[in-house]
Amino acid sequence: MSDPLRSAAADLHGLLTNDPVVATSGVGLFADALRDQAVAVTETDWQPPMDGTEDDLAAVLADRRRVAANALAAQRMTASTAALVDVVQARDALGLEAGTFLHAGPPLEWERASGPMQGALIGAVLFEGLADTAGEAERQLASGAYEFEPCHHRDAVGPMAGVVSPSMWLYELRDEVHGNTSWSSLNEGLGKVLRYGAYNDEVIDRLHWMTRILGPLLQQAVRSIGPVDITAIIAQMLQMGDEGHNRNRAGSLMLLRELLPGLIQADGSSSDIADAVRFSGANEHFFLNLGMPACKLATLAAHGIPGSSIVTTMARNGTDFGIRVSGTGDQWFIGPAQTPQGLFLGDYGPEDANPDIGDSAITETAGIGGFAMAAAPAIVKFVGGDVPFALEATQLMYEITETEHPMFQVPILEFRGTPTGIDVTKVVRTGILPQINTGMAGAVAGTGQVGAGLVTPPAECFPAALAALRRAISWPIS
Amino acid sequence: MSDPLRSAAADLHGLLTNDPVVATSGVGLFADALRDQAVAVTETDWQPPMDGTEDDLAAVLADRRRVAANALAAQRMTASTAALVDVVQARDALGLEAGTFLHAGPPLEWERASGPMQGALIGAVLFEGLADTAGEAERQLASGAYEFEPCHHRDAVGPMAGVVSPSMWLYELRDEVHGNTSWSSLNEGLGKVLRYGAYNDEVIDRLHWMTRILGPLLQQAVRSIGPVDITAIIAQMLQMGDEGHNRNRAGSLMLLRELLPGLIQADGSSSDIADAVRFSGANEHFFLNLGMPACKLATLAAHGIPGSSIVTTMARNGTDFGIRVSGTGDQWFIGPAQTPQGLFLGDYGPEDANPDIGDSAITETAGIGGFAMAAAPAIVKFVGGDVPFALEATQLMYEITETEHPMFQVPILEFRGTPTGIDVTKVVRTGILPQINTGMAGAVAGTGQVGAGLVTPPAECFPAALAALRRAISWPIS
Repeated sequence: MSDPLRSAAADLHGLLTNDPVVATSGVGLFADALRDQAVAVTETDWQPPMDGTEDDLAAVLADRRRVAANALAAQRMTASTAALVDVVQARDALGLEAGTFLHAGPPLEWERASGPMQGALIGAVLFEGLADTAGEAERQLASGAYEFEPCHHRDAVGPMAGVVSPSMWLYELRDEVHGNTSWSSLNEGLGKVLRYGAYNDEVIDRLHWMTRILGPLLQQAVRSIGPVDITAIIAQMLQMGDEGHNRNRAGSLMLLRELLPGLIQADGSSSDIADAVRFSGANEHFFLNLGMPACKLATLAAHGIPGSSIVTTMARNGTDFGIRVSGTGDQWFIGPAQTPQGLFLGDYGPEDANPDIGDSAITETAGIGGFAMAAAPAIVKFVGGDVPFALEATQLMYEITETEHPMFQVPILEFRGTPTGIDVTKVVRTGILPQINTGMAGAVAGTGQVGAGLVTPPAECFPAALAALRRAISWPIS
Repeated sequence: MSDPLRSAAADLHGLLTNDPVVATSGVGLFADALRDQAVAVTETDWQPPMDGTEDDLAAVLADRRRVAANALAAQRMTASTAALVDVVQARDALGLEAGTFLHAGPPLEWERASGPMQGALIGAVLFEGLADTAGEAERQLASGAYEFEPCHHRDAVGPMAGVVSPSMWLYELRDEVHGNTSWSSLNEGLGKVLRYGAYNDEVIDRLHWMTRILGPLLQQAVRSIGPVDITAIIAQMLQMGDEGHNRNRAGSLMLLRELLPGLIQADGSSSDIADAVRFSGANEHFFLNLGMPACKLATLAAHGIPGSSIVTTMARNGTDFGIRVSGTGDQWFIGPAQTPQGLFLGDYGPEDANPDIGDSAITETAGIGGFAMAAAPAIVKFVGGDVPFALEATQLMYEITETEHPMFQVPILEFRGTPTGIDVTKVVRTGILPQINTGMAGAVAGTGQVGAGLVTPPAECFPAALAALRRAISWPIS
């Protein structure tokens, strides 16, 4: 054995004679100052927790239920299944009453609603035949004639404005493992569509065709072929360059292939069937409205576990961004919706974009979408950023999530599972916000889609949720 | 200005006082020996040219036509288009006479044919009704009763055994830019199929159903919807995790989507149509038989340019691997087909595999397939290797190719075009062989598919082609 004292002395001598090597973390100023003095610096990614959260963080991290509760939430989220079992009108599926409209995101009043949300509600009133003109619809809506309610409050999800009215057809998805059901509307395609706040005749006519022809044909198809495994399609699409939020090309084709035998042999005219197949085949986002309720089922399974700091909802109504957390139940934690940065269609530019809107951030909440961008590098041509950014976005999300999804794998990361189950404590501790990619609606009612881009939640949702998690701890824990 | 003499002296002084930094290339022994002496070594990838090729290489590289000829070949290869314009029986499309059978790869006699090739020929004789039993078919074939000819000699391509008989239906593809046409048979699906050398009743019954029902329905569909842009599907599938040789999932779904409106409204029973849609939708390699003739059109456009050292055919008949080169016309350069290494189905193992077989290496010849594996990392679960290998395989192929395909892009390589146009001089100079991925047929006639794997051409094809390129130079070039 060597002499420890001599060895320590040699170390100390080295401290004086060798060049210093300094590791820094937190404020970049330190590293810059050292570099200016020609000192080798190794920077780590550590950042201080979000301002003023130290006490809440210490209390919640010390909650003895937390580790097991989060492990259970992650286990339930990743073990959930999602099968398309039926296609049903909203009045039957959800008991949606005439004059009640569902919308995306946290609760909202007409006065605070953004342009695309107001536009979609106007369109839905026209589509239901409750008004003859947009002006009349708007007056009714402003007068308080109708009820509004978040989709999430009925276990449904809607992309963008997410407006659902009683006559619309919904996909019905079932998680047999946990006994949950969720719903989403049918996708209308791109451009001038209700969910982006457009409500001209083209939009309303398409909704009528979907109600009269497409919905009943899809119902027949699904009922004749039996449940369609949506979870399996998500797993496959991640091997095929989709991330399940803004790239759904492979998913849409696989869904179409599943539905085809049922559609072809449905009771209907061959031209109606050909129209339905053509409409569905032409829509690269056809699958989004199945992926979203599948993700809703995953997060629903993880919801309501006392002590769990896992996020189970992220949703935006175009004005507010809201999150809900497993351990705090149905309480929303709200902040102002941010405006995405990205790529614009045609002549539109940043000044035309509405703040973030839609329930589609349920995809990121369940570990796909922005969290799986490494699986879909081609998405950068649609939402902006570059290929290294897409890879880094997924890798960064491992910092704030509880687990890696066993079925949703990213080939280029050597089949690593997607980062799944956002942990409020990790977001607050690291300051890393969930990466969402999203469509962008025009800010003016009636415009439609103007682009697609990248966005994060407002940071304040997470300290608010953390404080509520702390309040929900009843000391001493038995 | 500094004093150059003083500067040179300082450099020389540095040579004596600084640690040596040595760059090595070629034989790894040098680098190892230096490393053993604690000398920092930078190894480069340089390898000496293939043995005994120095004179031919010098002569061909000095051919003044070469640079322009290869640029023209690359330009024509990447500017070619491929549209599916018709579905026609082989006797009509190719004037294929009764008793003549096309096969994959370079020319071959019955006696030298491998198990899967003999099995496929036996099956084709049975399918055409020329014999009642496999034994009878085999005796006829061995007696010289029939004519054999490579698919390539009629501008057709066939996967695996590639056997085409007069009653089989072929896809007809057209390159309008260069005025070329190519053909390929319809894909039978996986497992026990003729192209893998199986010929039991299940195989022959399926071929009869394809001839009686599928072919005519596909013909109606293609004729009613008009040309289908196959090049555009290839460009898209590379963004969707396919490489176009052993992963055709997205391509097959996109092809199905294109054909659907025509299929649904075809004149036929709804159950036949549903069967045709189900059969096509269930087949993940449905698109391969369209991608291959599209690649044939690309290489055909680049063929026959005097002085060009670009490879325009790579094809295997299960016994021999043959290449043809633009500047040497229709001459084949042959070597023994290698046995692929990869993954096996069920209980099959390496001892069950036949040597490399099929015209499908036309995909690599045109810059996709093994050359585009970086676009399809999930393929390693099917052909073996790992994700870094898939990335490296594509990157290595840039060393031996003339250009990067402007339409076929690899998202993960930041949309770099696939390496396209194998240059014989680069293969010989670097010793890097084209990377092919492939299905593996059972060596025993009648077995069917046993796995999928990775393989290269036998090296000797390339020096032989180089020597012929040299002989084709007529000095002095005017």
